[in-house]
Amino acid sequence: MIPQQRDEIVDFLRQLQHHICTALVKLDGEAAFRHDDWQHHSGGGGQTRVIEGGRVFERGAVNVSAVEGRLPKSVGGRGDNIGQNFFACGLSLVLHPQNPFVPAVHCNFRYFECFDEQGVRQDRWFGGGADLTPVYPELEDVQHFHRTLQRACDGVVPGSYQRFKAQCDEYFYLPHRQETRGVGGVFFDYLRDEPGHDWNTQATLWHACALGFLPAYLPIAERQVQREYGEQHKQWQLLRRGRYAEFNLAFDRGTRFGLETGGRTESILLSLPPQVVWAYNHQPAPGSAEARLAWFLQGRDWLGISEQEQ
Amino acid sequence: MIPQQRDEIVDFLRQLQHHICTALVKLDGEAAFRHDDWQHHSGGGGQTRVIEGGRVFERGAVNVSAVEGRLPKSVGGRGDNIGQNFFACGLSLVLHPQNPFVPAVHCNFRYFECFDEQGVRQDRWFGGGADLTPVYPELEDVQHFHRTLQRACDGVVPGSYQRFKAQCDEYFYLPHRQETRGVGGVFFDYLRDEPGHDWNTQATLWHACALGFLPAYLPIAERQVQREYGEQHKQWQLLRRGRYAEFNLAFDRGTRFGLETGGRTESILLSLPPQVVWAYNHQPAPGSAEARLAWFLQGRDWLGISEQEQ
Repeated sequence: MIPQQRDEIVDFLRQLQHHICTALVKLDGEAAFRHDDWQHHSGGGGQTRVIEGGRVFERGAVNVSAVEGRLPKSVGGRGDNIGQNFFACGLSLVLHPQNPFVPAVHCNFRYFECFDEQGVRQDRWFGGGADLTPVYPELEDVQHFHRTLQRACDGVVPGSYQRFKAQCDEYFYLPHRQETRGVGGVFFDYLRDEPGHDWNTQATLWHACALGFLPAYLPIAERQVQREYGEQHKQWQLLRRGRYAEFNLAFDRGTRFGLETGGRTESILLSLPPQVVWAYNHQPAPGSAEARLAWFLQGRDWLGISEQEQ
Repeated sequence: MIPQQRDEIVDFLRQLQHHICTALVKLDGEAAFRHDDWQHHSGGGGQTRVIEGGRVFERGAVNVSAVEGRLPKSVGGRGDNIGQNFFACGLSLVLHPQNPFVPAVHCNFRYFECFDEQGVRQDRWFGGGADLTPVYPELEDVQHFHRTLQRACDGVVPGSYQRFKAQCDEYFYLPHRQETRGVGGVFFDYLRDEPGHDWNTQATLWHACALGFLPAYLPIAERQVQREYGEQHKQWQLLRRGRYAEFNLAFDRGTRFGLETGGRTESILLSLPPQVVWAYNHQPAPGSAEARLAWFLQGRDWLGISEQEQ
């Protein structure tokens, strides 16, 4: 059943949280998730699940929340929503692996409702996305991640992957570094009931994308975690995590939305890496494995590219 | 001589950079500063000086820049400045010590000019400040830092310290943590030629404050660096540096101004700590040395407080 109404959507997100956590614990093989329930100051709450110090995951968080409040400016979109009461629910996930060969990954699937002062719903929409952040990328992995999401999206709305992929590259961009945060994936927002895309279609698209996350990521992690790494690889991962922290703190709208609406700080900032290094003016040696990363951070057309173009 | 005109101010900042770096190298006793000259894309440039891996300083930066460009929105202040051409010069310093007992410190002394389309100067002002960020604070140190700056400021304009101290606490505040970044100091902006405060007075106040930085900080570092520390102390320092990175990336207007005006990213982000740890929901044990820090992060009246009140 495709979740279309608020209660169905919240149920689906909770099931998805359970499903994802079960799969990640199985992959990790050592650590478990701790669960923290919390309440939001203006209504609702959530459950934060954190896995730390595992075989695979240095830290991972899979959070579900369903909260009510008033919209701050940072939500963006349509100006006439500002100051309206809202309902927002979502699942957000960030995984920071131990092994530098295993990419970090993020996904978020959310649903918003806006109300006027009389409590009449004025608007509702789906948003979300998934994106991959390797520090030693392999084209095969990047293509697997994108192809899986492409099949999920285009299977519901042909052409949607291409749009969402472009939006992902645009959103996860560090202007001061002139590079994308990682190798992208899909990103979308404001999926509304509108001419050409009825509510059922939008819900189906969102649902397919959310279910596409695990098959897009798991095979990559399973394969890469077998690789042995040294201190040099770890150091590169810690340096690159600096860029991740820069993006999340300085640019990410989700982080700002959470902090500005008085969300639970410890849950919101779980997206930050467990350990980070900032070095002054670090440049990887030309031709090194580390130097290869730059080629991957320019929002390329992964599904139409070959190894030779690298 | 009090620097009052653009060229005098730039000269003073360069001398101050030299003076501060000489004192810091002497204190460190092992490391030296490397110098990087750079050009700004829209005119001017600067010199970044970095000390790394020393006996005292894990990393420190003392930068001077003098650049021209067009004002972005983030400068704030008066709306009619937006889009105007500007000249900005400043010294900015951030020190991240190795020893967790030595406080991190930041200061910035800057001067702005705004021009209309015909190149006629419309406005000019001084700004700046200095603030201390200990992770194992001692009241005696905090009082020394504040008293030194108080004497510098009030010696020129009586009552200015109290205003600047309050502005510092307000500016260096992390709303999502409900705490100040450190124990404050002074912070001021838009010191203009205005009724009651002529340009000479403002320049003298700014100059006195800039010269107050070293005597405010050096004795603290010299004393605290003698203390022995262990892994637990270092870990607490790395955790607290997470808050420092949160402030600088998510809230600091100086960082935003630099990044939005196309400043040199590597110089701007030198304010970030060299190593950082983020832990989920970390709470120091009640009664521990780490737990004492919270009392110091509420913008207290340091010069009117006694040990007994802790």
